[in-house]
Formats: sequence, C-alpha cells, structure tokens
Amino acid sequence: MSDVLYDDLLRAALREDLGGAGDRTTEAIVAAGALGSATAVARQSGIVSGIEPFVRTFILLDPRIEAQRHVEDGDRVEAASPIVTLSGPLRSMLSGERTALNLLCRLSGIATATRRYVDLVAGTRARIVDTRKTTPGMRALEKAAVRDGGGRNHRFGLDDAILIKDNHVAIAGGVAQAVLAARNHAGHTVKIEVEIDSLEQLDEALAAGADSILLDNFSIEALREAVERVAGHVPLEASGGIDERNVRAVAETGVDIISIGALTHSVKALDIGLDILA
Amino acid sequence: MSDVLYDDLLRAALREDLGGAGDRTTEAIVAAGALGSATAVARQSGIVSGIEPFVRTFILLDPRIEAQRHVEDGDRVEAASPIVTLSGPLRSMLSGERTALNLLCRLSGIATATRRYVDLVAGTRARIVDTRKTTPGMRALEKAAVRDGGGRNHRFGLDDAILIKDNHVAIAGGVAQAVLAARNHAGHTVKIEVEIDSLEQLDEALAAGADSILLDNFSIEALREAVERVAGHVPLEASGGIDERNVRAVAETGVDIISIGALTHSVKALDIGLDILA
Amino acid sequence: MSDVLYDDLLRAALREDLGGAGDRTTEAIVAAGALGSATAVARQSGIVSGIEPFVRTFILLDPRIEAQRHVEDGDRVEAASPIVTLSGPLRSMLSGERTALNLLCRLSGIATATRRYVDLVAGTRARIVDTRKTTPGMRALEKAAVRDGGGRNHRFGLDDAILIKDNHVAIAGGVAQAVLAARNHAGHTVKIEVEIDSLEQLDEALAAGADSILLDNFSIEALREAVERVAGHVPLEASGGIDERNVRAVAETGVDIISIGALTHSVKALDIGLDILA
Amino acid sequence: MSDVLYDDLLRAALREDLGGAGDRTTEAIVAAGALGSATAVARQSGIVSGIEPFVRTFILLDPRIEAQRHVEDGDRVEAASPIVTLSGPLRSMLSGERTALNLLCRLSGIATATRRYVDLVAGTRARIVDTRKTTPGMRALEKAAVRDGGGRNHRFGLDDAILIKDNHVAIAGGVAQAVLAARNHAGHTVKIEVEIDSLEQLDEALAAGADSILLDNFSIEALREAVERVAGHVPLEASGGIDERNVRAVAETGVDIISIGALTHSVKALDIGLDILA
Amino acid sequence: MSDVLYDDLLRAALREDLGGAGDRTTEAIVAAGALGSATAVARQSGIVSGIEPFVRTFILLDPRIEAQRHVEDGDRVEAASPIVTLSGPLRSMLSGERTALNLLCRLSGIATATRRYVDLVAGTRARIVDTRKTTPGMRALEKAAVRDGGGRNHRFGLDDAILIKDNHVAIAGGVAQAVLAARNHAGHTVKIEVEIDSLEQLDEALAAGADSILLDNFSIEALREAVERVAGHVPLEASGGIDERNVRAVAETGVDIISIGALTHSVKALDIGLDILA
Amino acid sequence: MSDVLYDDLLRAALREDLGGAGDRTTEAIVAAGALGSATAVARQSGIVSGIEPFVRTFILLDPRIEAQRHVEDGDRVEAASPIVTLSGPLRSMLSGERTALNLLCRLSGIATATRRYVDLVAGTRARIVDTRKTTPGMRALEKAAVRDGGGRNHRFGLDDAILIKDNHVAIAGGVAQAVLAARNHAGHTVKIEVEIDSLEQLDEALAAGADSILLDNFSIEALREAVERVAGHVPLEASGGIDERNVRAVAETGVDIISIGALTHSVKALDIGLDILA
Repeated sequence: MSDVLYDDLLRAALREDLGGAGDRTTEAIVAAGALGSATAVARQSGIVSGIEPFVRTFILLDPRIEAQRHVEDGDRVEAASPIVTLSGPLRSMLSGERTALNLLCRLSGIATATRRYVDLVAGTRARIVDTRKTTPGMRALEKAAVRDGGGRNHRFGLDDAILIKDNHVAIAGGVAQAVLAARNHAGHTVKIEVEIDSLEQLDEALAAGADSILLDNFSIEALREAVERVAGHVPLEASGGIDERNVRAVAETGVDIISIGALTHSVKALDIGLDILA
Repeated sequence: MSDVLYDDLLRAALREDLGGAGDRTTEAIVAAGALGSATAVARQSGIVSGIEPFVRTFILLDPRIEAQRHVEDGDRVEAASPIVTLSGPLRSMLSGERTALNLLCRLSGIATATRRYVDLVAGTRARIVDTRKTTPGMRALEKAAVRDGGGRNHRFGLDDAILIKDNHVAIAGGVAQAVLAARNHAGHTVKIEVEIDSLEQLDEALAAGADSILLDNFSIEALREAVERVAGHVPLEASGGIDERNVRAVAETGVDIISIGALTHSVKALDIGLDILA
Repeated sequence: MSDVLYDDLLRAALREDLGGAGDRTTEAIVAAGALGSATAVARQSGIVSGIEPFVRTFILLDPRIEAQRHVEDGDRVEAASPIVTLSGPLRSMLSGERTALNLLCRLSGIATATRRYVDLVAGTRARIVDTRKTTPGMRALEKAAVRDGGGRNHRFGLDDAILIKDNHVAIAGGVAQAVLAARNHAGHTVKIEVEIDSLEQLDEALAAGADSILLDNFSIEALREAVERVAGHVPLEASGGIDERNVRAVAETGVDIISIGALTHSVKALDIGLDILA
Repeated sequence: MSDVLYDDLLRAALREDLGGAGDRTTEAIVAAGALGSATAVARQSGIVSGIEPFVRTFILLDPRIEAQRHVEDGDRVEAASPIVTLSGPLRSMLSGERTALNLLCRLSGIATATRRYVDLVAGTRARIVDTRKTTPGMRALEKAAVRDGGGRNHRFGLDDAILIKDNHVAIAGGVAQAVLAARNHAGHTVKIEVEIDSLEQLDEALAAGADSILLDNFSIEALREAVERVAGHVPLEASGGIDERNVRAVAETGVDIISIGALTHSVKALDIGLDILA
Repeated sequence: MSDVLYDDLLRAALREDLGGAGDRTTEAIVAAGALGSATAVARQSGIVSGIEPFVRTFILLDPRIEAQRHVEDGDRVEAASPIVTLSGPLRSMLSGERTALNLLCRLSGIATATRRYVDLVAGTRARIVDTRKTTPGMRALEKAAVRDGGGRNHRFGLDDAILIKDNHVAIAGGVAQAVLAARNHAGHTVKIEVEIDSLEQLDEALAAGADSILLDNFSIEALREAVERVAGHVPLEASGGIDERNVRAVAETGVDIISIGALTHSVKALDIGLDILA
Repeated sequence: MSDVLYDDLLRAALREDLGGAGDRTTEAIVAAGALGSATAVARQSGIVSGIEPFVRTFILLDPRIEAQRHVEDGDRVEAASPIVTLSGPLRSMLSGERTALNLLCRLSGIATATRRYVDLVAGTRARIVDTRKTTPGMRALEKAAVRDGGGRNHRFGLDDAILIKDNHVAIAGGVAQAVLAARNHAGHTVKIEVEIDSLEQLDEALAAGADSILLDNFSIEALREAVERVAGHVPLEASGGIDERNVRAVAETGVDIISIGALTHSVKALDIGLDILA
C-alpha cells in the first residue's frame, strides 16, 4: 500500500501524541545530537502486520531514521524475535515509539487473531473474511492486517459491492424485489450479495440471481441444509455469533465464507516492545 | 468535548465507508424521499460512551437528521435498552449506520471495561487510569470513554507531563540525574513522574523530588513495601501485567493509581445495534 | 450524494477564485447590505446535472442564501429555462457566480453528452457507461452526471472491481493466467472483467471464467462475431474509438455495454448563465 | 510552479482512484518486486503541458520512480513521440497510470487548443487569453497550460484585478460610476477593466479612466469602430461567441486581446498513452 | 470576508489551545449546563478590527452561542466600551476566550496603529499602505485590519501585481530591462511597480513605462525631487525606515503612497478583555 | 521540534504568498535554470530563533535548496552577522524570501525581547515566562522562541495544566472550592495553579493545596508580602502590567515566575534581511 494512503493518519497520530510542547521528557534528558538504535521485538508469539506504517511513522517524524526489516508482514514471530531495527537520532526514536507501536501492536493483533481462525478451519473450503466493523480512519490498514493473517477481505465500504441487509429487504418488500432493484441499479462491475435469516428466503434469493448469499445467525443444521440446497451455484457466507469455539463446526457445514466482525472490532493487541540502545 | 475536536475524524470515517460511489445498496432500494427513525439499542449490558460523536456522524452526513437521547455518556444500559433515537431521511440513517456504530460500540466497550476495573477496586484508594496505548487519531475520544467508565486519565501525550521511563533513566545515568534534568527543563506547570523497576530505586526517586512514582512490574509484596516506605508523600502508580484477576490484589497494596493499557489497546466492542423503522 | 463528499472540493474552488483579497470588484461597487436574487438559466438545450453542488457553493460562501429549485438533476431544459433561483445578499451571489457555474456547466455538459449517446442507442440492449478518464478530484460528481444523463457507471476506481488490461495480460503470460490470478486474489464481492484485443482471446477469457469481457478496438464484424460466440453467457463491453457517428452501429452488434472516455475527458460545457436581479 | 501548489490535488486524485482497497488488479497479477519502465507517448499531434504534475503523481505514489523527460512543456509532439519515460517498480507505474494521464491529457488538450487559436491570429496584434471558466481546483495548472500553448492569462481570480461586468455596471448606475467606485476602492497595484456591450458606453469607459475595456459580444464592425475610436489609448479585449471560425476576423479588427472561455471550459483531451515495458 | 476564507485558521487555533484534553479548568469547575453572557470590552482606546472572526471562533466551538455586536470593524472604541456581547453556554465562552481575544486584540492593534499613521498624514495626498510582512497564515485578516484602520492594501502576494525589487533589477541588468521583461510576461490585468534606490534610476523607470515607482530609503530631499520630476505621471511610493516621527515629513514631500512594514510585522495588541457574567 | 509539527503552517504561508499565479515578478525576470546563493543577515543585534522553519520553508518550495547554518537558535547576532546561507535555484530563493523572513524576523523578535527581560532580572530567582497570548496557529514556534531567548514556557494550552482564573473562582464560589473541584477532576499528572487578586485570598489558596499561585496585578509591596508569607512552599507567579521598566523591581520581591503577555502579543520583529547573490 502506498504511503500516500496513510500518511495523513500517521501525521495526525504523531501530532496527537506530541501536542504543542512535544516530548518534554526526552528533550529534558536526551542530548539533541545523540544517536542510537531501536529494535521492535515481539514479546509474545504472533503474526506481524504493519511494518511499513511503523517505519513510516518514524520517518515522518525524522527523515534521518533508517530501518532494517528482519521479517515481513504476514510472518510469524516468537517471543523475543526482532521485527525491525531502526537507527538514527535517539530523541526521535524515543518520541515516535508509542505512536508507531500503537499501530504495529494493533495491526499485528488483528493478523494474529485472523491466523488463529484460518488455522481452525484448515482443510475445509471456508475462507475467513472481515467486515466493515473497523476502527474509524484505519480500515485499509486493518483489512491489510486481515490479509496478512491469511484471511480475505469482504467489501471495503458501502461503495464497492452491494450487500442487501434485513432492513433493505424489509423496505423493498422481499428478497426478490430487493435483488431486482439492486440489479437494475448496479453497473456490470458490481456484485450483489443478499442477507437472509431463514431457509425460507433461500430459494427466493437464488431465483432472484444474487451473486452470493449471507446466512445470518443460522444454526449449524440450517447452514448444512443451505449448503446442500445451493449445491455450489453461488458462494454462501455464514455470519453472526461465530467465535473460536464454533468456527470449525461452521466451516464443516461446507459454507464458502465465514465473516467475523470481532477480527477488527474487538482486537487484542499483540505485545511488541521497542528495545532502545543509546 | 466540542465537535471541532473530532469532526475531521468523523468526516474521514464517513468518506472511508462511502468511498466514491456512496451506498450503492441503499440508493438502489430506498426511495430518495423516504423518512424513518432509527434507535441505537444495546444488545448487551454495559456503560455507554460516545453518544455525541455517534449523533454527529449522522448530522455531518445529513443535517436534516434529528436525535433524541435516552441516556447519557457514563450511564449503564441493559440488553434492549434504547440509547438514542434518530429521525429523518431513511437513506441517510442506513448509510451512516456502520460508521456511527463503529464509534459507539468501541467507545462503549472501553467505558464498560473501565467500569469493571473500577468496580473491582471499589473501597480501596486506587484509581484506574489509562495509558497512551490508544488508537491513532482517537485518543481524546478514547480517554473520554475511560472517564465515562469511572476511570481517570493518565497524561494525554508526550507534552502534558513528564514521565521518565527506563530508557530515559539509563541515558541520564540514573534516577536522580533524570529527575534533576527534567526539573531543570520543565516549567512550573508540569509534573514529573519517574518509572522505577526495583525498590532500590525508590529512595533515589523520592529524594530527587519526583511528583509521583511509577512502579513497573512490581510484585504484590514489593508494591506493599513501596507503599509503606513512601507513606503517602507522593502518589504511587502500579503498572505492568495487571488484569481483572489480579487488579484487586494490586489495589489492596495501597497504591494510588493503577494504569492499564488494555483499556484502550485491547478493546472488546460493546454490542449495540441500530433498529431501523421505515 | 451527501455534502460531506464534496464540500472540500467546493471550498478549495471558492478559495481558488477568491484568493486572499476576495472579490475586489463586487466589494468596490455593491453595498454590503444589498439583497437580491439570481436565477441560473439555461442558454441552450441540455440535461441538467449538479444542482446540489451549485447551490452548496453559495451556501458555503454565505449561509444566508436560500435556493428554490425549478428542475431536478436529469431533467432536460431548453434555452431560457430557469434551473434554480437564489435569494439573499447580492454580494455573495456575485462572488460565488463563476465558481458555482463552472461546476454546473461542466456537469450538465457531461449529462447532455451522455443523453445524446443514450438516445442514439435507444432500442438496443447496449448501455452507455463512463470510464476512469475523469477530472482529478471530481470523479464522483462526474459519474453522477453520467447517471443523470441516463448512462451507467463503470467502476469508480482501481479498488471496486478488477479490470485486467493488455499490460496485465502480458505480464501474467496470457488471459487465462491473468483471470486465474485475479480470481485467487479477489474476495467474493469483486467482479473480474478482462480486456481482449482479438477474437482469438475470447474463448480463453470465457473459459477462464471472467465475469465480463471488454472488446477493445474491435471492428463491427468482430464485435458481432463475439456477441454470437458468447451467446449471452457474460456481458460484453465494447470500447475504443467510439463516437456519435458509429455508436449506433456498435450497439446494433448486440454488445451489452459501450464505454466512452470522451463523456468525461472531453467535455463541452453546457451554456448556463446567472441572471442577477439587484 | 512549485509542487507545493498542487501536491494536495495530486494526492486527492490518487486517493480517489486507489480508494480503500488500492489497485486490486495489479496486486493480483504483478509481482511486488517487479521493475519496469513506462513511456508516455503521444497518440496524436499536439502541444504538451503538465509534464511536472504527471511525473509528480508517480513520485507521490512511489518515491522510487525516476523520470527522464524527452520534451518540455510547450513543445509540439507528433503521434508516437515519447514525452517522458519512467522507470521503477512496475506495480506503481500501472497503478498511477490513469491518474497521471488524466492530468497530462487534459492539460495538453488545453495547450493544443490554445496553440491553434494563437496560430490563427498570427501576425495580428491580438493575444489569446483564457478566462476564469476553469475546472474547480485546477485553475493554476490550466492557466499554465494556456501559457504553454502560447496564450496569455487573464486574471487568476476575483482578487488579482478588477473586472467590472454588466451586473456591476447596472448596480453602480452606469459605467462611469462603476469605474469611479473601483478606482476609489482599489490600491495602486490593481488594474481596472470594464465590460461594455455597446459603442455608446465606450466614451464613458475611456473618460472614466479604465485601464482596459472588454467589448462583449460586439460585431466585427463594432469592434473595428471601437479600435479606431480608442486609438491605442487602452487595451481592448473582445469576448463572447468567438471560436476557431471567426477568431481571425476578430483579430483583424485590431483588438489587443481575445478571451476564449472554451479553452478551459470545453477541453478536448490530447490522446496520450502510457507504453509499459515489464 | 466570507467565513470560508478563515474557518481553517480558527479551527487550527482552537485545536492548538484545547489540545487533546480540552479546557481542564473549566470542565472541573463550571457545570455542563450553565448559561451566561460575556462582553468583549476595550481596556484602552483604539480602532476595532476582527469582530467577525472573534464571533466565529465561539460559534465553531459551540454553535449555540449568539452574538450581539455593539460596534463595527473600523469604529473607534474608548476604554470600557463594549464591542460585542455573547450569550450561551458558559463553559464554551470560557474555553474560547483566549483564542478569540488573541485574534481580536492583534487585529485591533493593527487597525489602531494604521489609524495613527493615517491621522498623521491627514491633509496630504499620501495614503498609508501595508506590505507583505504579515503573520504566516493571517495575511487576509491583517490586511482587512489595515483597511479598517483607514489604510490601503499593497499587493496581497507575489501573484497579484509585479513589484520589481533591487535583486530583480540586478539580475535583469538594469531598471529598463527589468520593466521590459515584466511587461512582456504580464497579462493586461497586471500592474508593474519598480523599486529604485537613487534618483539616477528615476528617469529610466519612467521611460520604461512602470505603472508606479517605489522610492526605497530616499531622503526627504530626494523624495521631494522625485515628486517634482515625476509630476504626477505615475504614483510614487515611499518606503524604508518610516515611523510615526517622520511619516508627516515624508507625506509632505508629495508622494502618493507610504508603505509601512511595521503595521503588521511589529504589532502592539490592543488591550481588550472579556467580562464574563455567570 | 519535528517538521511534522509545522509543515502545514509553512505550506499555508507559502500558498498565501504565491497565490494562484505564483511569483510573477521573478518568473518574468529570472531565468528558470539560474542558480545562486542567499544569506540571511541580521540588520540589528538580537537573539535568533526559527532557523529550522526558515530553512524548511525554502525546502518545501524547492527541495533542491541546501542550507548552511552559521549560528544556532538562541545565539546572539550583531548587525551584519550571517545566520544561514542557502544555495540553489535562484528563482526559489527569491520566491520564498518574504514568507521565510516573516517567520524568522517574528520569532527572533520574540527571542530578543525575552532575552532583554531575562537579562533585566539576572541574579534574582525570577524566571521569565510566556502566556497563551500567542498568534493563532503559531503557538509552538512562538513558545520555542521564548525558550531560545532564555525564558520558560507557561502552559501550552487549556489542556496541559489547570489555571484557575478570577471567573472560575467566582463561579466556584471561592478559591478553596475552585482548587478542590480542580483537584477532584484532574489526574495525578496535572498541576493546579490559582490566580488571586488580593493578599486575602493567599492563605486560602495555600490551604487548598494549589501547586502554584498567580498574583495578578499585585503592587510591589503586596508581592513582597506574599513572598514572605508563602516562604517558598509553592512557586509564586507575578503577572499584569509588567514591562521593561518595572520587571526588575518585581523580580526583586522574590517571586519565582514573572509572566509577560507582551512577549508574544506585541512583538517587534527583529530586522533580518536576505542578501541574494545571483
């Protein structure tokens, strides 16, 4: 992803942390010309994501900082594994530490959780995908973290695919009417998915020509029945209440896609520290 | 908090979700003039935070939307409790739903977790505080959520207090030297806290005149010893590896402040939905 | 489209015209308190597009201005037809005139040209669509103008569909390889179109499972042959060198989609003036 | 022109095309490390303008891209002439292609049209100038393109000169009153031009001391009469309904300046392609 | 001046003062719902400027605040004169106070100093004008303050007039060459002023056809000689080392314009306070 | 201070001066490829501040410009002392001159005035500090200039310390109540200062536990009395009506801090010129 897509976010984050007075502590204690190095080191096992925005944060703060990457996004690290080593002005490394780690730990947390789900469904046809339940302003980075974890991305926003949800179905007066309206409106480059909440709506969705069908809060049995009925004609997506305990069972029903909002709405940051060498 | 502090974030979040083509689904299915109402409803019990940015998101999208607030930030809601009801153009309510909920669920998740910690230490002198481990661009809102949950805020950034950490101590050549350098540099409006990692550094920190002392990764026994030695002369802050299981024990040592990064770096969103009435 | 998507553009345009010193002429001649009205009037026949950004430009300049719309986007106007009437401070109407008209004339020019193409292919199955050859910063408004003219939108950007072009095919080593790589990469919400430049590639594209096929610079005979071979299995798009003289012939080959870059890259502004009543 | 004046526009254009998900096609098909070159090549004859923003677009996307310029802004190119050759990461060249070409083709289209008008009036004293009928946000680049085509610029905005138009004359109560008011208001660095629509107003405009006079929609005969009467005391500008068919006749009346809105409001993009070598 | 020209500056100023944590003092002490009023009151005699940005600052902070203006920009106030009274939420009035006063005091200081100079040259033909020595980001407001003080504006920037300075003359190889180059480059809407530093250059400047001549650091005698020689053919501007002690003598030489950088580069803020009524 | 904190200000200042048309004079007269050097030279004695933003302004305009610094921020220069020498494209040095000097002269003026005050109180315990009466958008740079002059900074904004002023005391119902409310609200990292306007409030302020006390508009005798009573238990700050004539007397009362709004609200720019060598 080009810097041009996230530089504004990183600048805002740096300004947020530096405020007007800057890093008072570091300016009080560290000499202006002092050089040093700093290595981001995993404190626990996980999947790394966000190395480029991590490095870029320091470079925006001080273009004299240089970086040596030890791993790549998507790689697994173990506790004590080095991720990236920076060298340059010591003050800038201390002042950028928290802002850069906040990004790296969060994105690596997303990648790590995604990888756990991906591993849990290994051997099935199910792909783990994210949702639009992302942090305001960080969607592109968070969706990249899902990919780094081995997941796939659902649509990026309201604009890049049609997803007909229960409210839309109700307003349109039924699944068929909603899909038809969507088909008439959308150009030839846009896919149409429709969310249904019962098996009764399944045939209607199929007949209406949806490109894929989201089965919302279906029981394992209902999912299995849906898979059987659809017989591979369109991809089926399961969502709603899926967590690490039941994701395998869901995957074994034969659905194609399992979407999990918690990947991005309830992130556990990966513990990564910055070891600074003055 | 004035809108002027977060409008840019909300606009960026709206643009991120709407993209260039806008909400294709809603435009295909919902008539341009249709009116309706929408109520944010808790799907689980928790503490609400973020009502104003939630409402503001919709108003930035469409100034014709009006809001009726049922609770206030900091209130506890139960499953099925209404939080705020919007009325106005139906299309705008559907298009703003996800962006606004992403904010409200995240902030309420922070407030809810904070309240759990606050309740766990009830009756002790310990206050629960946050850290700078916040989401890039959202620090002010996340720290407000901590307050809504009954917690207090640690410093907002590198600029509004001095916090001397282990790296600074090492560079300065000792706790006393670091505090002295900070004292010489800082104006009379700035407090100085110093982080120590052993009881050996405690007397030095006290003697150097730190305004407060952060005890990093101390055992319960060491914390108790520190509290006894300091005898209330300066506030003591415990941090490092504190979670819901051990926070009570930490609080009972008599420390004044317990800081918990997970409040903001590992948030579990509160489940809140938007019930739309066409 | 919500204001939130184009307010930045309108503000930049106003600042660009007002500069630092503002409207020297109007300030010299028109009294500060003078009121008046102003009507945007078509000077030639065409399709209107951009009424909302036109009005919004004036409101951003001066919130006291009120607007009465006489027609809607997509309506045909004849010479001397009123489009929208503003009333309020005279100075602001004079100062906003050129910026607002620049938008309205350009967007209406796009809608008018689109309508001519749509009329030319009336009765065939072909839909007129735009391309990404839009003015930097104005894509969403220009694509809305194409819709106002009765056209459809091709993809909005590089992100909302996959369009494999000749360079991609060359790099991938063939149409089949390219489509396969795209299929593996894209999530289930993304459509894949592939551009081919000879009938030889058609079977390969079909076999590879492209969702649609772009026939670039095909002769009328080759287009007809392609339509026959594909027999409706996927939509076919014709592009390249199509103008008002040959678009009917292209449409009569039976292609589903005709994309025309000139709709947005070579716009003839619709002549609309602002009649001001002091 | 310094980058600082248009970087924001280029960044907005890149974000507009890349959206949240970026260039899905290229990421699916082109290896991350692949290098290549790309040459912007004219597909038709014309005058080039916009080489620097074209190159800068790629550099903002990826600073590793390097450029070799074959011609300069203002040079004539023939079909198949190379304009600039880029080398660097192949992905970035594919992803930036459309955004950069949209700029270059539009600006070169303006320069080319301007040069046609300039050539048509060659040998007369008339200079071809632009108007404020430019694309929102692109005025400085479009006015530079007019200069590259051999034209001159009229005022840049409402702030850098006074141009009294018919509405101002009506409000002021006459040409003399309007010029007087302008003279009283403007500092010594500001020129005053007044638009008149009949010969009757000419003497009044001269007597009032306008620095130049705009003859709006005058017949050829009336222009000739005005030139004779003014006898070179102030520059005369002709405008209104001037196109390639009648511009020579207008120029031969002896007017000093001919302003043509269509130079920027009705641009025909110059056909330039990007030949990519993987 | 429309808000659209300075809202960004006011928002930046509010964010600068509020920081991340906002107005801690007011939030600690003033109840959220408390209402009140606040009157900006002059503490010394002077000319007011900046009432609109003063009011707008509060409205951007809190749209519920209403304002009643007692005087207008350009009016003289005496110590204890009320300028504008605000009413609304007490917290917002306290939090916006300093940011809004910083603007009002500075701009009124500029207007007041300008008026002193204007009064000192009363009865002569000399007009007091400003320079480009303004505060970064505040030029339009500061130049409006000069007008409010009865002064005129020199050019607003490098773009709205040509001012040939000593370096340009040296590079061009002489006054005549410089003016000629400027004349060839500039369109018909642009005036050309040339700076000279000796009477020897005066005839050359006149002969070259400069629209006005800047006499830099001329003695009173030399100014008088220049006025005599030029005999009203072009406006003459005096600059350099002019202050309140010698401005009258300069004006009495007969020059048309006296430019004074100190009007904006060395401002003494007018003392204005905010009297708050809880 | 990192560039990231002021680049937006510098870009806005450059755009403000360049406008749409850029530096017409320089483009008319100076050849595009011409190189040269330029040295910022003090025209009077003073303390320099702002070298980095001065240099950065040129680099943002043209990254080919290189700088050699002769002194550092905080150094004293005499008339004719060189401060920094730039080399690179001549056009860019001429075009950036005024914008860059506006910054450097203003900031050096602040540093110089500060140094005068600091020298005047030499040998006493008093420290000279600034206030929040800064120029909108320039606070961080202006406060850095105060430090370069040997002064200290008071709080940066409403957010980084609590300063209870007369209005707050009145609303709270007394000094003790106000300090108590502040103590309850503020976290452990925030200092509390309270402003009092009579000796009667002094004991109350001390008893309430304020971290420091601001003595507003106290007579010399009252200041001396306050110093005696407080006996070093908390820092005492004097403010109100302090200027170069009386600052020594104030300092000799034994107060710890003297805050002076005029340091930033009534700046006299230091005279610095740019000597350009073509």
